[in-house]
Amino acid sequence: MTRVLIVGGGFAGMNAAKGLGGVKDVEVTLVDRSNHHLFQPLLYQVAMAGLSPADIAAPIRSMLSGYRNVRVLQGEIRSLELNRKVAVAEFGEVPFDYLILACGAKHSYFGHDEWEEYAPGLKSLEQATEIRRRVLSAYEAAERTTSAEDRKRYLTFVIVGGGPTGVELAGAIGEMSRFTLAKDFRNIDPTQARVILLEAGPRMLPMFSEQSAAKVARDLEQLGVQVWTSSAVTKIDADGVEIGAERIRAATVLWAAGVQASPLGKATALEVDRQGRVVVEPDLSVKGHPNVFVLGDQACFTHQTGKPLPGTAPVAMQQGHYVARLIRDELANKARQPFKFVDKGQMATIGRSRAIVEIGRLKMAGFVAWLIWLVVHIYYLTGFKNRLLVVLQWAWSYLTFHRGARLIVNKEWRLQTPPPSSDPPK
Amino acid sequence: MTRVLIVGGGFAGMNAAKGLGGVKDVEVTLVDRSNHHLFQPLLYQVAMAGLSPADIAAPIRSMLSGYRNVRVLQGEIRSLELNRKVAVAEFGEVPFDYLILACGAKHSYFGHDEWEEYAPGLKSLEQATEIRRRVLSAYEAAERTTSAEDRKRYLTFVIVGGGPTGVELAGAIGEMSRFTLAKDFRNIDPTQARVILLEAGPRMLPMFSEQSAAKVARDLEQLGVQVWTSSAVTKIDADGVEIGAERIRAATVLWAAGVQASPLGKATALEVDRQGRVVVEPDLSVKGHPNVFVLGDQACFTHQTGKPLPGTAPVAMQQGHYVARLIRDELANKARQPFKFVDKGQMATIGRSRAIVEIGRLKMAGFVAWLIWLVVHIYYLTGFKNRLLVVLQWAWSYLTFHRGARLIVNKEWRLQTPPPSSDPPK
Repeated sequence: MTRVLIVGGGFAGMNAAKGLGGVKDVEVTLVDRSNHHLFQPLLYQVAMAGLSPADIAAPIRSMLSGYRNVRVLQGEIRSLELNRKVAVAEFGEVPFDYLILACGAKHSYFGHDEWEEYAPGLKSLEQATEIRRRVLSAYEAAERTTSAEDRKRYLTFVIVGGGPTGVELAGAIGEMSRFTLAKDFRNIDPTQARVILLEAGPRMLPMFSEQSAAKVARDLEQLGVQVWTSSAVTKIDADGVEIGAERIRAATVLWAAGVQASPLGKATALEVDRQGRVVVEPDLSVKGHPNVFVLGDQACFTHQTGKPLPGTAPVAMQQGHYVARLIRDELANKARQPFKFVDKGQMATIGRSRAIVEIGRLKMAGFVAWLIWLVVHIYYLTGFKNRLLVVLQWAWSYLTFHRGARLIVNKEWRLQTPPPSSDPPK
Repeated sequence: MTRVLIVGGGFAGMNAAKGLGGVKDVEVTLVDRSNHHLFQPLLYQVAMAGLSPADIAAPIRSMLSGYRNVRVLQGEIRSLELNRKVAVAEFGEVPFDYLILACGAKHSYFGHDEWEEYAPGLKSLEQATEIRRRVLSAYEAAERTTSAEDRKRYLTFVIVGGGPTGVELAGAIGEMSRFTLAKDFRNIDPTQARVILLEAGPRMLPMFSEQSAAKVARDLEQLGVQVWTSSAVTKIDADGVEIGAERIRAATVLWAAGVQASPLGKATALEVDRQGRVVVEPDLSVKGHPNVFVLGDQACFTHQTGKPLPGTAPVAMQQGHYVARLIRDELANKARQPFKFVDKGQMATIGRSRAIVEIGRLKMAGFVAWLIWLVVHIYYLTGFKNRLLVVLQWAWSYLTFHRGARLIVNKEWRLQTPPPSSDPPK
């Protein structure tokens, strides 16, 4: 029996597990901290009340239940002992012959971890519902207050980071203010909300062409979003943000800037780059450990273009497929081939019917690009039971401008104040 | 202008607001702590991962946005000054000519508030997702552990209270173990889970006939649920429950027993019954304050049968309609008529295709009763955008035994430990 341990149930880990599912004499264990696989590209829709968490997340366990040789354990890997071929989890040791690390990345606050409290990032369902709670609560507070000063602060939304996530969040807030909420309030006019997208660099969407980025900026302006480039944030607190000598009072600040790989690579004394990503060989293995692979956002793969591959879903999926195949081949005594990423283009969406798509030299924008974006995202939502339901939900939102999931759900479920000393049962 | 203040956006409050919506020279303010109206009768489906929160909850604000004379404020009423005709909210004072209290009820732990931590009740979305988290996490922990003792404890589910909610929860856990999860685990057999429903009284479902209650007990047994009657809980802690000299180790305990009205009535020195419900006159007003009404679960109305009306959705809805009409009539100088509840029967559901229905002398059980249950619940889900989507979701679950919302979502969204001294922005 060859024991394969996969750490992480994102796009890379799931594709590796599926590629090894049903393979003879292979026993797969997948460990993830959470019980669900997340369709990250649509996470901003949960944060913006367009979709429910269950529309874009499914239990890892049930997605893999068809493979009798795959075992799923919810838990956290604390450390790795590569020479002993053992991973140490909170619930005990897990031995392996092959190890596949696909732990992903989290946000980086560039050394200002204290900013997280005031400016949540968007990587998990927990963060998405927290962002939803903050955005909707800001409108509620604005409706309640009698101070014009406070009202302005409540109706100011600052998004830090001009990449695809920042653009999607800013576009959705703009749209929500202008259409969805426009008639719901009596004391305030939601269309007066200020939405500001801050980008530290000279232009937003640096991974896209200048032409596409300029198109996006115009689309955002039509939704009432102002894009401030060359605007690096120097401070974030409960009151708002500072950009050098400038100061904006904002009740809601969202973080869509830097990214940092999972710390497990660095903690294992593997070679990492500045963002904590593990430097991998052409076959995605770690130098000196041909049985240990690092995939997806956690890996720094530079052998194709000289630059690291971006932390996107297509890279992670292709790498998962690749490593599963490599292990199958190796068990059949075939030699390893280097990994090759096939770039199928990139896209970003702005509001309810606009997007930009770039496939090689082909550049598209507007409604047709948005249709392509829609078809691609629905296609890849496979494995999720309710692809049809999500499409219906979207169709409904599209026609009515409604957002069905506008719920403010608090963190505390208890009615009584809990006694301070005891831990609730897990 | 006649100012009407409604406290609470449940069935009673919403129906009162709708009945006063668009009425000339009336200005309505509805205050609720949460931003959403909840379709309580289906809340157990959220706790049991069958539906998403957004399927059974909708923003109060958008449900009432069509009425230009209705204003919605999210917040909490701290106290009432009936003689000054003013309610004191956290955000300021709200004056009124008419006051409609419809604040509902919460669970009562019979003087053992410390039990709440170990045995959550089911009244809010927060509690429903907490119950979902606990139930699903218990299966995960059972799969991880190597101790047979611990495994047994993780796979034991105790539900306290043999009313409709307890029956629905127990039936759903039994069904989930037997069908939904049966193939998802490798180390445990979910069908071995112990599900125990505890009822302090001599039989469960005392509001139904003995015949229907016996039918339900047999249905529950087929789903692996044991019903223990005459079993009053004497202690609940992190390890399990005690029933007198008996002790059951259980990682998951759910509370579906006592109920207690919102404390606002008692705090205002109004006459209340043992459960904190405000004793009301035949027209639902409070003695000495003909302009103050109490409705729904918060009211104790005994003028029809001698016993208080039960805390159900039909009672709350009819009372909401009634008070709106009373105020409209009074503004047109018509005399008050006493409230009369029209009993249309009662029902409860067990698992995926069984229910009991009692309408007067008519008693039904089994699949036909379940179809009636389904039609009635879908009919009353009006005002929720996605009635069709919920039906589709159910149809899908019904055919596949899947439960789409099996997500464990944690309370903490931060990655970093927050600094202890500062409050997160609201």
